[in-house]
Amino acid sequence: MADKRKFLICYDIVDSKRLRRAHRLLSDIAMSVQYSVFEAELSNAELQQLQEKLMPCIDSEADKLTIYRLFKTNAKIDLAVHDDDELLYI
Amino acid sequence: MADKRKFLICYDIVDSKRLRRAHRLLSDIAMSVQYSVFEAELSNAELQQLQEKLMPCIDSEADKLTIYRLFKTNAKIDLAVHDDDELLYI
Repeated sequence: MADKRKFLICYDIVDSKRLRRAHRLLSDIAMSVQYSVFEAELSNAELQQLQEKLMPCIDSEADKLTIYRLFKTNAKIDLAVHDDDELLYI
Repeated sequence: MADKRKFLICYDIVDSKRLRRAHRLLSDIAMSVQYSVFEAELSNAELQQLQEKLMPCIDSEADKLTIYRLFKTNAKIDLAVHDDDELLYI
């Protein structure tokens, strides 16, 4: 099975129709972290397909869509979840 | 000089007063990538200070704020910037 890597996809899409389309597309293959931010595990081929599908959703003048590669483990702090006095290290 | 690492900070903050406070705080030390998403290079001490400052801005019931550690290089695709037919690899 192709090696999968972890990615974060975040976007600012102005037009509501394009926004819904991107959101629907991502909801099928990724986990919603917060509004307009998704985490996904993708092979290289899946990453290319995702780019091809998302490109028509983006107006390069008005919108932003960034894909970040993430570390697989120990690379995330969720500030809303842990106790107030416990600072986290990643 | 302390070794700095790259982080992504993204948030969903419901209350406008808390939202402005977090945005102001982050604008001082990080680069705005898009609405409610910032990139920052931080030492461990700076990461701890940032958590301490951001915690009062977060209502753990209503809000989300996630800090991701990022790779330093070759780890980002900006779909709105490059040519339509050019798929990027990271």
